[in-house]
Amino acid sequence: MLAVRVEKRCALVQDIPKPEPAGECLVRVLLSGICNTDLEIARGYAQFRGTIGHEFVGLVEDSTEERLLGCRVVGEINAGCGECERCRKGDPRHCPTRTVLGIVGRDGAHAQYLRLPVVNLIAVPDSIADEHAVFTEPLAAACGILERVQVNAAQSIVVIGDGKLGLLCAQVLALTGAKTLLVGKHSEKMRIAERRGIETNTLKQAAKRKKQFEIAVEASGSAAGFSLALDLLRPQGTLVLKSTFHGMTEMPAAQIVVDEITVLGSRCGRFAPALDLLKKGAVEVDSLINEEYALRDGARAMKRAAQRGGLKVLLRP
Amino acid sequence: MLAVRVEKRCALVQDIPKPEPAGECLVRVLLSGICNTDLEIARGYAQFRGTIGHEFVGLVEDSTEERLLGCRVVGEINAGCGECERCRKGDPRHCPTRTVLGIVGRDGAHAQYLRLPVVNLIAVPDSIADEHAVFTEPLAAACGILERVQVNAAQSIVVIGDGKLGLLCAQVLALTGAKTLLVGKHSEKMRIAERRGIETNTLKQAAKRKKQFEIAVEASGSAAGFSLALDLLRPQGTLVLKSTFHGMTEMPAAQIVVDEITVLGSRCGRFAPALDLLKKGAVEVDSLINEEYALRDGARAMKRAAQRGGLKVLLRP
Repeated sequence: MLAVRVEKRCALVQDIPKPEPAGECLVRVLLSGICNTDLEIARGYAQFRGTIGHEFVGLVEDSTEERLLGCRVVGEINAGCGECERCRKGDPRHCPTRTVLGIVGRDGAHAQYLRLPVVNLIAVPDSIADEHAVFTEPLAAACGILERVQVNAAQSIVVIGDGKLGLLCAQVLALTGAKTLLVGKHSEKMRIAERRGIETNTLKQAAKRKKQFEIAVEASGSAAGFSLALDLLRPQGTLVLKSTFHGMTEMPAAQIVVDEITVLGSRCGRFAPALDLLKKGAVEVDSLINEEYALRDGARAMKRAAQRGGLKVLLRP
Repeated sequence: MLAVRVEKRCALVQDIPKPEPAGECLVRVLLSGICNTDLEIARGYAQFRGTIGHEFVGLVEDSTEERLLGCRVVGEINAGCGECERCRKGDPRHCPTRTVLGIVGRDGAHAQYLRLPVVNLIAVPDSIADEHAVFTEPLAAACGILERVQVNAAQSIVVIGDGKLGLLCAQVLALTGAKTLLVGKHSEKMRIAERRGIETNTLKQAAKRKKQFEIAVEASGSAAGFSLALDLLRPQGTLVLKSTFHGMTEMPAAQIVVDEITVLGSRCGRFAPALDLLKKGAVEVDSLINEEYALRDGARAMKRAAQRGGLKVLLRP
């Protein structure tokens, strides 16, 4: 089968054997999405070698659970050991020996087939199109903010970064009723948020609104975004770090201490709330799709996804 | 009167006029303590010019409140506007127009006299010696951790840094019943903690205990301490930033995201819990005193305090 694989800091389409289920489910991928983390991995992040990709929708072709056979599914990306304290509590996202689809020790979704444990798969309601379902993972990551910080409608929230993740975060947070501002550089992307009733600012406009927000979400992955977020927060405010930063980031630590800021790392979220939002059509994802490529053009698709100002690039096997 | 003043990135003893009370209390300083923040200010931090020092015990010589006259006091260092939302809630520590004793817009404690508002002063119980009372402010800062994070006896805590602040933080946290480890470089300082039943490790020993602690307190003020703290924390653990860092600090942001760490800035604490601990003799401060200088030797005392491996240097007017 075809798969987009990272070897020696380079993403290539290769023809590799179709995986054996080996006690897990075999899923035929219908559509996968390229995430910035894929691009980081291709640059050496996480020291991963193998098939990349962790955003997908697919059809179950082989499973020990009959109810799943032929089912259209999305899949949580962390596969735990099942035995540690974390896994026993039903949350493998921090299992110390977890594998992670296309990121840690497990081949990923930019392929014709992938395999995942039964417990990771969630059926997709028929009313959700493949092109929407493929957003479940990044949308779940946006919803994950609400697992880490309590948001109420009286608060002011700023999201820094008008990329895919920022646009999803801003939409999810605005649904709480909290006044939400998206800060970005690209007017055409900010218009996506504006259509959902979200206020937008350029960096220059936002820089004038110092100490006005209770919560800031850093979704630009840049040190400049981190600094701006700190400036915009009220004392004792909360900064949610959502981006996968690469390498070391310069941080004004004194400002965190003096203003007693809480910095929260936030990674993966649960899939159920994300699927629920997609089913309701509460979040706009159509306009986040930049382009679709055939899987065999995966290397070219990765280059497209790496272009500045781009949004979601999809791969169809 | 004599005062240690910072002008053009240099700390000098100068003879300046005794302050007028101007509606506040006039306090004759009995003893003051040199904090690392004083040293940072002398290097340019906070762009402060004037009399430095914010740790003191003194006698009230002039006050509109008769009950305070002649009273031995310590003083909370943040003086708020009294009118903003924060001040009205009784906490001027984040008043946007606050002055801070010897740090922001207000002459400090390394002087024969200082002035502070009535509300900032707290009487010191007779049983607490001056040499102990002068530790109220840094001890309150250590206690301030407990205002920011819930600690319970079942948790494991690591404090990075065996300086004055680290030794106070470790002692305060150990009093909660939580298993507390102090990580440092100086065996003679670590012995102070060991005498209070606190386990100690060298950096090398600690580096082997990855992902074992629920809470880490960074009290070394170094990027290396920050990184070590992240390594020692369990996923979803809490890193308390207690040191005043100077300039930018390099931070592995991806690790905060992947392990979903909470980083909490913590600055000043309330004085009452600290005085209570000093009254009970629950915290060892005697052995934290390095040396005492006369105020007129303030410049020399600052140099002594800046030497590596030193502890608290006191100034007596």
